Amino acid sequence: MTLSHRITHIIGTGGDGWGLFYKARAMVEAGQPVTELTIGEHDIRTDPSILAAMDRAARGGHTGYATIPGTDGLRDVVAARVQARTGVSTTRANVLITPGGQSGLFAAHHAVCDEGDRALFIDPYYATYPGTIRGVGAVAVPVPARAEDAFQPRAADLAAAAPGARSLLVNTPNNPTGAIYARATLDGIAQVCTDHDLWLISDEVYDTQVWEGDHLSPRALPGMADRTLVIGSMSKSHAMTGSRIGWIVGPEEAIARLAALAIHTTYGVPGFIQDAAQFALRQGIGMEQEIAAPFARRRAIALEILKRQTTIRALPPQGAMYMMLDIRQTGLSGEAFAESLLDTHMIAVMPGESFGQAPAGHIRVALTVDDARFTEAFQTLVDHATALAI
Amino acid sequence: MTLSHRITHIIGTGGDGWGLFYKARAMVEAGQPVTELTIGEHDIRTDPSILAAMDRAARGGHTGYATIPGTDGLRDVVAARVQARTGVSTTRANVLITPGGQSGLFAAHHAVCDEGDRALFIDPYYATYPGTIRGVGAVAVPVPARAEDAFQPRAADLAAAAPGARSLLVNTPNNPTGAIYARATLDGIAQVCTDHDLWLISDEVYDTQVWEGDHLSPRALPGMADRTLVIGSMSKSHAMTGSRIGWIVGPEEAIARLAALAIHTTYGVPGFIQDAAQFALRQGIGMEQEIAAPFARRRAIALEILKRQTTIRALPPQGAMYMMLDIRQTGLSGEAFAESLLDTHMIAVMPGESFGQAPAGHIRVALTVDDARFTEAFQTLVDHATALAI
Repeated sequence: MTLSHRITHIIGTGGDGWGLFYKARAMVEAGQPVTELTIGEHDIRTDPSILAAMDRAARGGHTGYATIPGTDGLRDVVAARVQARTGVSTTRANVLITPGGQSGLFAAHHAVCDEGDRALFIDPYYATYPGTIRGVGAVAVPVPARAEDAFQPRAADLAAAAPGARSLLVNTPNNPTGAIYARATLDGIAQVCTDHDLWLISDEVYDTQVWEGDHLSPRALPGMADRTLVIGSMSKSHAMTGSRIGWIVGPEEAIARLAALAIHTTYGVPGFIQDAAQFALRQGIGMEQEIAAPFARRRAIALEILKRQTTIRALPPQGAMYMMLDIRQTGLSGEAFAESLLDTHMIAVMPGESFGQAPAGHIRVALTVDDARFTEAFQTLVDHATALAI
Repeated sequence: MTLSHRITHIIGTGGDGWGLFYKARAMVEAGQPVTELTIGEHDIRTDPSILAAMDRAARGGHTGYATIPGTDGLRDVVAARVQARTGVSTTRANVLITPGGQSGLFAAHHAVCDEGDRALFIDPYYATYPGTIRGVGAVAVPVPARAEDAFQPRAADLAAAAPGARSLLVNTPNNPTGAIYARATLDGIAQVCTDHDLWLISDEVYDTQVWEGDHLSPRALPGMADRTLVIGSMSKSHAMTGSRIGWIVGPEEAIARLAALAIHTTYGVPGFIQDAAQFALRQGIGMEQEIAAPFARRRAIALEILKRQTTIRALPPQGAMYMMLDIRQTGLSGEAFAESLLDTHMIAVMPGESFGQAPAGHIRVALTVDDARFTEAFQTLVDHATALAI
């Protein structure tokens, strides 16, 4: 039986680039002591106070169909948070609650792209980006952000790819590179979007993990609120990855259409999870800082270790929970280095090639195990690179 | 800013037919004592034992990203349940866990239809069906099931619509009509699917609410397992509407592709909800029968009241949690009757017209308030019809 073209092309011809991740995961399941520095999953669980709020809501009876765009209470809290952090007037009519950031990415592209439309995204990219675009039947067009530019995309590269496109997807703070887009970068993005009448889909799920400079939401730039769909999530900010809850913030008409789409795709988000998210957001920035703090500590540990060697080059990540390391002096590709590190030392990292063409010869290290274990693993990684480069 | 054609056409030109529902809901929110017999929501909450299982799983640490096709444990339980009830060999490789039945309907159509493909569905239909098909960019083609045929679709009608189509969506036990498709009906459906190489998408979310005869899953018919995607859900069977958990059962290759789609649309289902669902399914058929029992009682109450009048005609529903009533002897349309009943007696029912062309002149009554209140409301409804018909 034939399946749709769309679904059979979600995974590109190059595979999904996650072979090493699955190999490491299989080793863990076989009982081997692999140190996994692969995906963006905290080494803590969701806070018990949040889980208690969820249980209170469920036992209190919030177990029936929840209002589809999201509960008024959660939409109001999200709107207030976004407005406070960006200065852009935002009400519940600008907010759709989604079952996670990935669901928001899919819905946003569904809302602005038709079959065959060109949709731009930046390379290096989070693993699901091209498949998400192909999943709505659009054509995924990568635009490089170069290592020599500290992975800030150039306006000229964007402008060259923009003719005929419908949307541009950006992610700042960025996974996998750790870049936070500078004001000049964002001004360039805004100009290209305006010049070519593009929707901007702005993935800001790392907005609480900022180590250098400031995160500026491009929705706050002049004229951009009418053409920007912001993707938010509780996954990274509140260690709620498994709760699958996030949001899209955008123009009222788009949000109304997205709510109609939600009726036909998800039929909403569990009410008890929405209540838990509302509780978590009401704890304010203190909880967010506490959850982000370990990544800042491990980033500092890694930078300190890197100072004592010359093989690996790395820009200090400005945000997010990863380090992108240039390992080209080892003479290996990112994939070969990651394989070698896993086979030799049972340390799993992601090959840069998993995230596109631009980060070839790099590896991405997630800052997601406890400090002591991280220190040891990172030192081993550096020593391994040094030995290879001799 | 222009949105995609697809998203702006999800709601058809006739509106969504749910005006009366929203009017009733607004009256309730304004404090008016409306008896709502509109949507398929139980008058009980999710069982505390299921919520306790959920809380145990969450506090036990199942709060990170869950495995995307679903946990092995839940997939195994679903596969065993399906195999036991249908006789069709089913393993976890045939099961994708989804965040609810609606998500399964969308994903199944996404998997088999490309942009512009014709996708058949039966009229009368559940409200989201045509929008779900339009949401994947396909063309929604209704095939009538006639009141005079007790809403069993005719093979000849299906065959007439089938040339060039990619899929047929059926729902048995049926919402809104209460019909359970007879073996002869299902044989006709299977023949048309085979003759025209159609995928069958079989929505079986009411499979625990069977009042007359037997529910037969069309996946069990000869040759159909390779071309059928079954949509299941915990919503109706376990009063877990708000937990958003269900599944798709189908051929292994289709399930593998649907898992790749899930990575790009939902990124899985909360692990603690999957654990709660597994707990609920392990309680066996006793819990399902207990949850279904009130609808059987109220169905009997309604049939008893109907015996004492001649204005309303109704087929006893064979399954599901609704009664479809023919009110044409009142001289009113379903919409006009529902409006009149709400305005006069503050009883809200769904106009047949909300479910397509075929059920015009009907209303759908949900069996979803407690027995005493249901008895009073249903008698009032009958008296109202009788008075109008005089």
